[in-house]
Amino acid sequence: MKFNEALESIKTYEAGKPIELVVREYGIDKDQIVKLASNENPFGCSPKVKEAVRAIIDNMALYPDDSMVKLKTALSNKYGIKTNELIVGAGSDQVIEFAIHAKAHGGSKVLVNSVTFAMYEIYAKQVGAQIIRTASREHKMDEFYALYLEHKPSIIFLCTPNNPTGDGLDAGEMVSFIEKVDSDTLVIVDGAYMEYARFKDPSKAVEPRELIERFDNVLFLGTFSKAYGLGGMRVGYGIAQSHIIEALYKVRPPFNITTLSLEAASSALEDEAFVQACIADNFKEMARYEEFARAKGIDVIDSYTNFVTLSLPEEKNSSKIAQELLKKGMIVRDLSSYGLNAIRVTIGTSVQNDRFFELTEPLL
Amino acid sequence: MKFNEALESIKTYEAGKPIELVVREYGIDKDQIVKLASNENPFGCSPKVKEAVRAIIDNMALYPDDSMVKLKTALSNKYGIKTNELIVGAGSDQVIEFAIHAKAHGGSKVLVNSVTFAMYEIYAKQVGAQIIRTASREHKMDEFYALYLEHKPSIIFLCTPNNPTGDGLDAGEMVSFIEKVDSDTLVIVDGAYMEYARFKDPSKAVEPRELIERFDNVLFLGTFSKAYGLGGMRVGYGIAQSHIIEALYKVRPPFNITTLSLEAASSALEDEAFVQACIADNFKEMARYEEFARAKGIDVIDSYTNFVTLSLPEEKNSSKIAQELLKKGMIVRDLSSYGLNAIRVTIGTSVQNDRFFELTEPLL
Repeated sequence: MKFNEALESIKTYEAGKPIELVVREYGIDKDQIVKLASNENPFGCSPKVKEAVRAIIDNMALYPDDSMVKLKTALSNKYGIKTNELIVGAGSDQVIEFAIHAKAHGGSKVLVNSVTFAMYEIYAKQVGAQIIRTASREHKMDEFYALYLEHKPSIIFLCTPNNPTGDGLDAGEMVSFIEKVDSDTLVIVDGAYMEYARFKDPSKAVEPRELIERFDNVLFLGTFSKAYGLGGMRVGYGIAQSHIIEALYKVRPPFNITTLSLEAASSALEDEAFVQACIADNFKEMARYEEFARAKGIDVIDSYTNFVTLSLPEEKNSSKIAQELLKKGMIVRDLSSYGLNAIRVTIGTSVQNDRFFELTEPLL
Repeated sequence: MKFNEALESIKTYEAGKPIELVVREYGIDKDQIVKLASNENPFGCSPKVKEAVRAIIDNMALYPDDSMVKLKTALSNKYGIKTNELIVGAGSDQVIEFAIHAKAHGGSKVLVNSVTFAMYEIYAKQVGAQIIRTASREHKMDEFYALYLEHKPSIIFLCTPNNPTGDGLDAGEMVSFIEKVDSDTLVIVDGAYMEYARFKDPSKAVEPRELIERFDNVLFLGTFSKAYGLGGMRVGYGIAQSHIIEALYKVRPPFNITTLSLEAASSALEDEAFVQACIADNFKEMARYEEFARAKGIDVIDSYTNFVTLSLPEEKNSSKIAQELLKKGMIVRDLSSYGLNAIRVTIGTSVQNDRFFELTEPLL
């Protein structure tokens, strides 16, 4: 059977290996495995979230409230926006998919950073759009602007803080760039790790409300998968002026968020103290990674997220090191498929991090 | 901002009203509301499923096992197929989306029954494909064949039992039709209600394994949203030869099923006795609806599902009656948007059905 041509060029997304897979493939006892590969919150979600989900477990048979009133109200209060400036996706991932399906098509161009979240390219290729990349590892606004002028892309992705490198874009620089972009180009600001950046350095913090008050072509993305500790529940969101949200709604499938996920996300917003405590711990532990890297003479990218990216010296191979760690039950992310000789490590609990240092020490 | 042209013709899917909405709009006490609008299993899911989900509630922070080994193994055992002949979607809905995105495009044609599940058209329009419809309310294979010859569609949808009418296609007739279809046309057999049809009448039962052994262009769809009582968890699946599954995987987003949903669906397959008991009760209660309709002189379509479609006489208006019922806290589905003067009612528990008869009695 012949399928659409666009499919031929699509590579499948390489996800962090789940614990179950390592159990199966390496025969390691489940309790011995530490996963620092998918930037999950090592403290999980707030106990209040678990309680709230347990309380509605009888509702699994009922289709979700597709108007998502409870979650949308909570999010609009959090950000000081209207509910019609908001769309909820199965992870911010799905909002990326909506945006690309609504705005791009065969022949469109999508401008992204040299090294960035892999799904931008995968979704763009699904509609036959062409990916344009900058040259530098960090987001350089002058490179973006030159390529914008040359290619007139339909969509520009700015991922800040950037995944998988962890560096953050100066918010003022970003705004100055967006000012120069034509209003028919959709600028997507992916803030999946923004809670961490906001905590560490206000100059990197993007305020969605200010962005959409100022620009009619910006879509901000946020997620419950990282700081809010709900990676398994698949809830993210997009914030933009209502005319953009309306267009994205046209490609949204009904019931895209499960009944339990809606409840989990809504109740997660009621315990910001838990989230802030997790973030504080994250940066305390991150200092230990920086110290470890310094002691080993390894380059570590200044990170505004819940992970660190360790750039390895030439004589060390990131794939080999990730593989060695995997055999010992430590799952980290090898970044060789991103063209980097680096490993990305999620900041875990102090016990998990101890284990990382212990296992990595002899390899570096 | 300009979006893709295809979006202009898309109407949003009209979902069954959730209980929360009726509480908000009509100020009716939640306990007084009966929802017989979305074909959910009125007995919910098996208690074992609730137990299994409760047991892994700490895993909400962890990204799902994207290889879905546990669920895929359970499904492949159930159907006697290989795991690479299987793709899991967020509802069978999402598998429909995958199929259309992989196979159809602007200029493609998609052949569907006159009255059928609304999402086929919505997804087709998202890629700019054209919908071709048969004339009769029931699936007539000769009508499908004539339109197939005339239009050479990329995709044909056969929904059996059909939603929202409940009638079932004879399995032998269906196979004879597929035999005449070119192998480059994807025939999608949507069996969302197949568990009910199989119980009531073996001649309507489609066996996915036999279908895909025989045909290299058939995709069978199943779901956990109906008989398995997991409408809120968004899990469905597609079964086809591996070359089709591989193509669909290219447009599948990673982590499309939540961690809790994977567990819920896997454990639901371990309690088939619960599901069969629910189905038996369904048809016992359905007989009461048939009796009610007969007594009222109302036409009821012979149903192989967990709902009945009551075709109203000309002097009665389905929208008005559905609205009257809604004001009293009884949610049913008005089918006027499908061009039918009919209401679709999910078979509830005997108490819920009593309430339906009591409230509807004076209106008919």
